[in-house]
Amino acid sequence: MPESAKPRVAVVGLGSMGYGMATSLRRAGLEVIGCDVSADSVKRFVADGGKGAGTPAEAAKSADIVVSVVVNAAQTETILFGAGGVAETLAQGAVFISSATMDPEIARRLAKQLEATGRHYLDAPISGGAQRAAQGELTILASGSPAAFAKARPALDAMAAKLYELGDEAGQGAAFKMINQLLAGVHIAAASEAIAFAAKQGLDIRKVYEVITASAGNSWMFENRMPHVLDGDYAPRSAVDIFVKDLGIIQDMARSQKFPVPVSAAALQMFLMTSAAGMGRDDDASVARMYAKVTGTHLPGEPN
Amino acid sequence: MPESAKPRVAVVGLGSMGYGMATSLRRAGLEVIGCDVSADSVKRFVADGGKGAGTPAEAAKSADIVVSVVVNAAQTETILFGAGGVAETLAQGAVFISSATMDPEIARRLAKQLEATGRHYLDAPISGGAQRAAQGELTILASGSPAAFAKARPALDAMAAKLYELGDEAGQGAAFKMINQLLAGVHIAAASEAIAFAAKQGLDIRKVYEVITASAGNSWMFENRMPHVLDGDYAPRSAVDIFVKDLGIIQDMARSQKFPVPVSAAALQMFLMTSAAGMGRDDDASVARMYAKVTGTHLPGEPN
Repeated sequence: MPESAKPRVAVVGLGSMGYGMATSLRRAGLEVIGCDVSADSVKRFVADGGKGAGTPAEAAKSADIVVSVVVNAAQTETILFGAGGVAETLAQGAVFISSATMDPEIARRLAKQLEATGRHYLDAPISGGAQRAAQGELTILASGSPAAFAKARPALDAMAAKLYELGDEAGQGAAFKMINQLLAGVHIAAASEAIAFAAKQGLDIRKVYEVITASAGNSWMFENRMPHVLDGDYAPRSAVDIFVKDLGIIQDMARSQKFPVPVSAAALQMFLMTSAAGMGRDDDASVARMYAKVTGTHLPGEPN
Repeated sequence: MPESAKPRVAVVGLGSMGYGMATSLRRAGLEVIGCDVSADSVKRFVADGGKGAGTPAEAAKSADIVVSVVVNAAQTETILFGAGGVAETLAQGAVFISSATMDPEIARRLAKQLEATGRHYLDAPISGGAQRAAQGELTILASGSPAAFAKARPALDAMAAKLYELGDEAGQGAAFKMINQLLAGVHIAAASEAIAFAAKQGLDIRKVYEVITASAGNSWMFENRMPHVLDGDYAPRSAVDIFVKDLGIIQDMARSQKFPVPVSAAALQMFLMTSAAGMGRDDDASVARMYAKVTGTHLPGEPN
């Protein structure tokens, strides 16, 4: 592809994930316009050598690809169809890549609505933290029309280490992501229940970590999150309220499909209880702190 | 150690685990006497070159080490103190190695009771399947007095790839094992809930397996058990009723300690429901079948 034909990319949402993704896109040689509700984030991106825009509409005006990196369906809908939204300016044939985790039904509706105006929609939830976003090594669970994939390809290549192509319509990427979130949420709650219960019995929880990570009780989340508990460090890498949202979506989906999900329902209640106790914005391993507080069990760095 | 001083080992319980452990002990050059409620199992062991005994008392008579490989605390207590039990004949200073998963309180009581008669007790729950038992590559979570460890060492070395020494009194090995079982049980129930829910939405569950095992939603149990669901093969590697028992012990422990464990409580109900539906002796991945049956969701090899 000649230099002049390199696609222009707008990144809407310059939080810890979006900023890293925008950086990866620039590193791949693409022209990137950043946009965020925080003017400071845009300033920082411009200072780093990127371009900035005041609204999604302005960012999307000359873009071939828009990458939306926000938290939920409501924010995605606002970016698309709200005042100053992408749909006001985006060119015919351009593609909107949505990375938020959301109910597959909503992903299908947003896609249909955008496609009706002559633009493409790629349902592309992401997995991996801020560091992998900055390195262009995300996992992307994508679905959409072949045209949407073709148009989005240069951006996907720049952002992902692993791209799953999960179907030819929006909603399938979202559905796979929700299954992952069901498991991830239950595993954090279970890890929290187990480590606090172990502490209650006077077991050395560093030894518990060593034994469990080498045993059949291990999970990716146990291994990744329980060091936060061992170190008494609840600075948010990913917050409790993210799983209040995602396990909430699971409950909504399951109820509307008349599908009982009692294990993830119990896990959701533990995240809700942790959020209600004032830890909603803390690291999601705070669920362990909640168990410890309720039961008067000592954990490292905690008062009781 | 000269040939004549090699310890003699009695293995009580020649099921799929015990038979493999007895085989590993013989491979290490130890003299092994096998005993089982099934005369056929003993005959098979003798035909393979081992020695046989009719009762635990007879097996223990000339043994330095007894390895008990049964399912629960009640069976362990019968082997020790029932009629024809080990305590009738075991020499002073010999060691009893208990591998059953049980409430740490009961492990402490059995140890105290045996130690009062001048023998040693090693609390040593095992992890790893029949294949690793036969290869002498189990994980053993052990606790007990230094004298118990010293006396048991040749057998432990022959049976374990990984030996955790978790404390100097019985009950600590059991407590670590119970924490592992809490997590393992929740992860099987969560994996089952997730894969059935994915199938309900029409997702390709082989693709789900591929995505999840490479994502943050992965667990050792998801990766190990869900292939049984993909293949529609519920021949028991480990049965549903094992987790009915183990998650039941967790509930008993937690209730007596006034420690709420709602996530594992929900998981237990799913194992109970699967057992109640007639699948108690089937593979524990049958929890997924139960979700599918209840919701009319199709899984491979299943009628609906």
